[in-house]
Amino acid sequence: MRLCVINPNTSSAMTLKIGEQARRAAGPGTEILAVNPDMGPASIESHYDDAVAVLGVLDVIRRGEAQGCDGYVLACFGDPGLAAAREAARGPVIGIAEAAMHAASFVATGFSVVTTLTRTCVIAEHLAEAYGMARFCRSVRGTDIPVLDLEHDDPAAYAEILAACRRALSEDRSGAIVLGCAGMSDLALRLRTELGVPVIDGVGMAVRLVESLVALGIATSKQGDYADPIPKPYTGLTAGFARTARTA
Amino acid sequence: MRLCVINPNTSSAMTLKIGEQARRAAGPGTEILAVNPDMGPASIESHYDDAVAVLGVLDVIRRGEAQGCDGYVLACFGDPGLAAAREAARGPVIGIAEAAMHAASFVATGFSVVTTLTRTCVIAEHLAEAYGMARFCRSVRGTDIPVLDLEHDDPAAYAEILAACRRALSEDRSGAIVLGCAGMSDLALRLRTELGVPVIDGVGMAVRLVESLVALGIATSKQGDYADPIPKPYTGLTAGFARTARTA
Amino acid sequence: MRLCVINPNTSSAMTLKIGEQARRAAGPGTEILAVNPDMGPASIESHYDDAVAVLGVLDVIRRGEAQGCDGYVLACFGDPGLAAAREAARGPVIGIAEAAMHAASFVATGFSVVTTLTRTCVIAEHLAEAYGMARFCRSVRGTDIPVLDLEHDDPAAYAEILAACRRALSEDRSGAIVLGCAGMSDLALRLRTELGVPVIDGVGMAVRLVESLVALGIATSKQGDYADPIPKPYTGLTAGFARTARTA
Amino acid sequence: MRLCVINPNTSSAMTLKIGEQARRAAGPGTEILAVNPDMGPASIESHYDDAVAVLGVLDVIRRGEAQGCDGYVLACFGDPGLAAAREAARGPVIGIAEAAMHAASFVATGFSVVTTLTRTCVIAEHLAEAYGMARFCRSVRGTDIPVLDLEHDDPAAYAEILAACRRALSEDRSGAIVLGCAGMSDLALRLRTELGVPVIDGVGMAVRLVESLVALGIATSKQGDYADPIPKPYTGLTAGFARTARTA
Amino acid sequence: MRLCVINPNTSSAMTLKIGEQARRAAGPGTEILAVNPDMGPASIESHYDDAVAVLGVLDVIRRGEAQGCDGYVLACFGDPGLAAAREAARGPVIGIAEAAMHAASFVATGFSVVTTLTRTCVIAEHLAEAYGMARFCRSVRGTDIPVLDLEHDDPAAYAEILAACRRALSEDRSGAIVLGCAGMSDLALRLRTELGVPVIDGVGMAVRLVESLVALGIATSKQGDYADPIPKPYTGLTAGFARTARTA
Amino acid sequence: MRLCVINPNTSSAMTLKIGEQARRAAGPGTEILAVNPDMGPASIESHYDDAVAVLGVLDVIRRGEAQGCDGYVLACFGDPGLAAAREAARGPVIGIAEAAMHAASFVATGFSVVTTLTRTCVIAEHLAEAYGMARFCRSVRGTDIPVLDLEHDDPAAYAEILAACRRALSEDRSGAIVLGCAGMSDLALRLRTELGVPVIDGVGMAVRLVESLVALGIATSKQGDYADPIPKPYTGLTAGFARTARTA
Repeated sequence: MRLCVINPNTSSAMTLKIGEQARRAAGPGTEILAVNPDMGPASIESHYDDAVAVLGVLDVIRRGEAQGCDGYVLACFGDPGLAAAREAARGPVIGIAEAAMHAASFVATGFSVVTTLTRTCVIAEHLAEAYGMARFCRSVRGTDIPVLDLEHDDPAAYAEILAACRRALSEDRSGAIVLGCAGMSDLALRLRTELGVPVIDGVGMAVRLVESLVALGIATSKQGDYADPIPKPYTGLTAGFARTARTA
Repeated sequence: MRLCVINPNTSSAMTLKIGEQARRAAGPGTEILAVNPDMGPASIESHYDDAVAVLGVLDVIRRGEAQGCDGYVLACFGDPGLAAAREAARGPVIGIAEAAMHAASFVATGFSVVTTLTRTCVIAEHLAEAYGMARFCRSVRGTDIPVLDLEHDDPAAYAEILAACRRALSEDRSGAIVLGCAGMSDLALRLRTELGVPVIDGVGMAVRLVESLVALGIATSKQGDYADPIPKPYTGLTAGFARTARTA
Repeated sequence: MRLCVINPNTSSAMTLKIGEQARRAAGPGTEILAVNPDMGPASIESHYDDAVAVLGVLDVIRRGEAQGCDGYVLACFGDPGLAAAREAARGPVIGIAEAAMHAASFVATGFSVVTTLTRTCVIAEHLAEAYGMARFCRSVRGTDIPVLDLEHDDPAAYAEILAACRRALSEDRSGAIVLGCAGMSDLALRLRTELGVPVIDGVGMAVRLVESLVALGIATSKQGDYADPIPKPYTGLTAGFARTARTA
Repeated sequence: MRLCVINPNTSSAMTLKIGEQARRAAGPGTEILAVNPDMGPASIESHYDDAVAVLGVLDVIRRGEAQGCDGYVLACFGDPGLAAAREAARGPVIGIAEAAMHAASFVATGFSVVTTLTRTCVIAEHLAEAYGMARFCRSVRGTDIPVLDLEHDDPAAYAEILAACRRALSEDRSGAIVLGCAGMSDLALRLRTELGVPVIDGVGMAVRLVESLVALGIATSKQGDYADPIPKPYTGLTAGFARTARTA
Repeated sequence: MRLCVINPNTSSAMTLKIGEQARRAAGPGTEILAVNPDMGPASIESHYDDAVAVLGVLDVIRRGEAQGCDGYVLACFGDPGLAAAREAARGPVIGIAEAAMHAASFVATGFSVVTTLTRTCVIAEHLAEAYGMARFCRSVRGTDIPVLDLEHDDPAAYAEILAACRRALSEDRSGAIVLGCAGMSDLALRLRTELGVPVIDGVGMAVRLVESLVALGIATSKQGDYADPIPKPYTGLTAGFARTARTA
Repeated sequence: MRLCVINPNTSSAMTLKIGEQARRAAGPGTEILAVNPDMGPASIESHYDDAVAVLGVLDVIRRGEAQGCDGYVLACFGDPGLAAAREAARGPVIGIAEAAMHAASFVATGFSVVTTLTRTCVIAEHLAEAYGMARFCRSVRGTDIPVLDLEHDDPAAYAEILAACRRALSEDRSGAIVLGCAGMSDLALRLRTELGVPVIDGVGMAVRLVESLVALGIATSKQGDYADPIPKPYTGLTAGFARTARTA
């Protein structure tokens, strides 16, 4: 099957890293297209960045549908545009925050999210609530590391993240760590080894979840709330986003 | 003060109607700019429409900031882009779903939302949850009237809405009705007269709430979760949405 | 319009202060009657004080109805007698805890309440729950300042309140402060200036909310749970509180 | 031990009935004082009635403390003044709604409340929420029988209550019935026999709960939220309700 | 009446202690059978111990039914097998965690549980949620005292428990303590005296609750979710647990 | 990898069916051991059956650990013994109710569970709550088909299930169906084709989830709440369930 892993920001270095993690996670026979939009913010660190990035996500999905993608992963911890993407795509769509939080609830009675800027903690908290995972999420801890500092190896960033994980485990009674940024996905294994608890990277988990749904023939429901968007005129900058009767 | 009332879809007939309702609601000395974006969907009837419409909302806010607007109303019942708008604007921003639901909780122990397409009921339910209003929201009832049918007077649409209101009052034990579409704002008075209960149009209520906050000097908190977006490169179609150090 | 702002305790010094804040907040053309009952506790610092104070509140409303008041503000942070007052009055009734908490949810993703005695924190917590605002209320912090110490300027009280606000902002990730006592209403502006975040006084906000509802013709629902009380005999001390067919 | 069972309305016929039920429920050695205040509404059928009735409840408790009562039952399904009563009394205080709902959660995974006027259903719903019993309360069903119609045997009222119970059991998947009015307490046994499920009268259950707490030496916590009210001046009609240092 | 108090672990020293507490709590005319199963773990300190212990609990209940027991107490803070026991028994069944948490909600607006191993805190948290008591439970504090260290007097264990109680009262704003292990039941009185707040032992409270229900003729509902188990073949080790048409 | 799919009841016909579904769902290279315990109830249709069945589940896991199983699926919709199994196993353990509910939340904003006996609906409701899925679960509908009637093809049972699904889709606004019994797993494809919405069989989904976790190296957290059970004496029938230092 062919899965499209979308990095919603425009950093190609991060897309590369995400693609590597996705391919490492994927089962045999799965083709991974790791892409980022050619529009949108360089990184997503606010509600505003998140809201504008959605356009690029939907653009990638439009192209993905033309390329016959069987499913999609949204590889930014805010899961930008998830509901819209589910309407626009034929196959399943999973966000990495969604994937990681659900997985954490399978292996621990409580988890902590360790993320980048403190100002984005509330985004993770709102997602935990929306996904029903608030009862498992014992804390969200910001490290105030800018997202793009995670493009490349940075020992100071790693040390800061490790310290935040340790505090979460000792102070919040959490049994697992959810990494709160796609840019941290390459740290999961190393952190897991040092901490001795599950450390969950949403990229790999989301790839596996989409694979699972596709393999089992479970697509997004097109009856009701996630039905295809109704075709109608779109204008201006967004004209290209109009749905036509059969796009849908 | 100068308030910008944003119709997030591109229907100028609806913008006209919304502007009239907003001016009728506004206090003395308030200037109402009723505008719609020059980009985006003709109407908002899905998560997809909602997600794309956010770009237009943020564009209007960018211009509104340049025009010295003191506050904003998002006049679509999905409150598209509310959190992003709060980061981008200096003054307060209120959505009409938010305004109407909160107001309903002040005058009844339970209310019902009567809206357009059934597929959008879930959007209202999620907003009720996000705003803390789920405990007051006894039902959301779809009428399957397309949004643009509300641009102009339509007796059949009115009758359908009236019938849905009556069912909500008699079957759901609700004491007030929240109108679930900006296009219904001109029906509030007539419905209230016929039904004998509060029928709340979010446009008028949101205008009053923004006026109140501005008058009292209460702006959106810029410490923490709604702080100004961090300046960074934006590319492609969305290049114009990049924030600069002093836009922010 | 004529609004009645009720100080539910019997401190006329506090009534004076509350009246000043209410008039400062009110829009043009609004007449403010700031009154306190001639019965009840000197201050409200327990469930017991709160319960007895309700009688005075209802007495003031009875007189207010005779005087043609268009709406009411309950200016004590416990919002004593709110549901009963809504049944007894024709116009809308808003409590200052209610007003302030809702307003805070419009300008921050999370707020803290800073109040007087620690023993009353639970009252604020229960109100936050009842109003659906618990998801926004990140903490309630008591200062153990007796209510009547706030009748007049007290630098030590101010310093204590300021310190509690600072702790709330830095330790609880709150973006706004709700002042948890009508007696603090004159401190809002000063605190806002020092803290750089919204500091919300419920008195002003409640006045604006009642004005807004009255202006828009939105009264308390008289169908269902807030319907006029049924006339029936009342005896003893409370005989004067009996409703008659047309009082109601 | 000496328990005071308070009928918060002024109907002596109902007090008599409540007293009988309480004595039937009480264990050996328990003296039941069944009293109603000499002030307040003839029946409690609204938030307004409920709020005014609290004064009478507190008056009875004041006298009860002087008479050495070991605990109190509030025998009106709105549990009027419960928190205030807990502050004012030395011994435990239980409301009949509280007692009946908790008991129902011990013998069924879900229960329904069958009550009098539909307008008071919301009071039961709010209590279920406040007591943590909302997850067990599958419905609250009003019968629109006025409270005082329950003073004496009324076959039509019984038939209506029985019918409402049957609907609750068959339509709401409830396994037990909670009687939503102290005036129904004498119907519990007959209903239980006809329905074949637990039918819980709060009067008997509350008497047993207070007895249990007293016997085990568990009194209301006087540290924190239910501490004795602080002595302070009370004026006007309520002057007699002032607490003095040693009343408390 | 005859009540069976079940210690679900196999420590007869603990059964002895539990029996003593139960008898001290019981009303006149109540016969207490304090028993432990002859199968299962020596102590219950994990989900695994808890799950296996259920078999012994059900075995004791089977025998109790034959002995004409009128009701049951599950005297382990995890309330193991509570729902199954309710199906299997004719009379009411109460767990000590259930009893203690409900009682605490009658005498304080918030309580803390002080328990043994930290790893079992989550069990108490899940029970608080299941019983609707989460809104009252301000914290669960582990002491890491092994359960069997509580078989006999241990000054160090007492000191540790006392210290945990003090921290709960001062740091968590709790007004009452719930003892989180049947093995602590003999400490309640001493702790209450030292701390000056209600300290609730679930054994005594559960005995009183079962007595109350039995006295009032309130048995577990056999309509619906707690109906008698359907007779069917059981095999292997558990063959003796099969229900027959009239066991049920 | 080697996965053990546990049918917790003793019906080998059902184990066969479950094994087939599991193998159909499994990825390449996954060996499926489909087993049922040699002790326990023939079917699980009550809390009592569920509680006794746990022993068999834990016995199978003990053997599975000896056989080097990498993960486990609990193939009964009550997910019996899930927490205990997580402590006892090295690899991940997923229940089919858990798997199906989570999956449904990925493809619809709301789902309905269609299950067997109405008396077990409450078990599904409690699981939805425990897993955080209550916000997605719009209804649980019983069909009153006994579990063992699903061992073999039964057109009447299929028709009843289909009808219940249709009612759920049309009356409850659900977008997906969760099959509430492992014995229905072979019906998913046929129902999906007839209904045109996702119909989710937990057996297949749970197999895929366990595979995913194992492939990604995510095991159950052994720090904290799911740590290995502490070795201690077990006696009587359950003596064989004692953990030893290195079993753990």
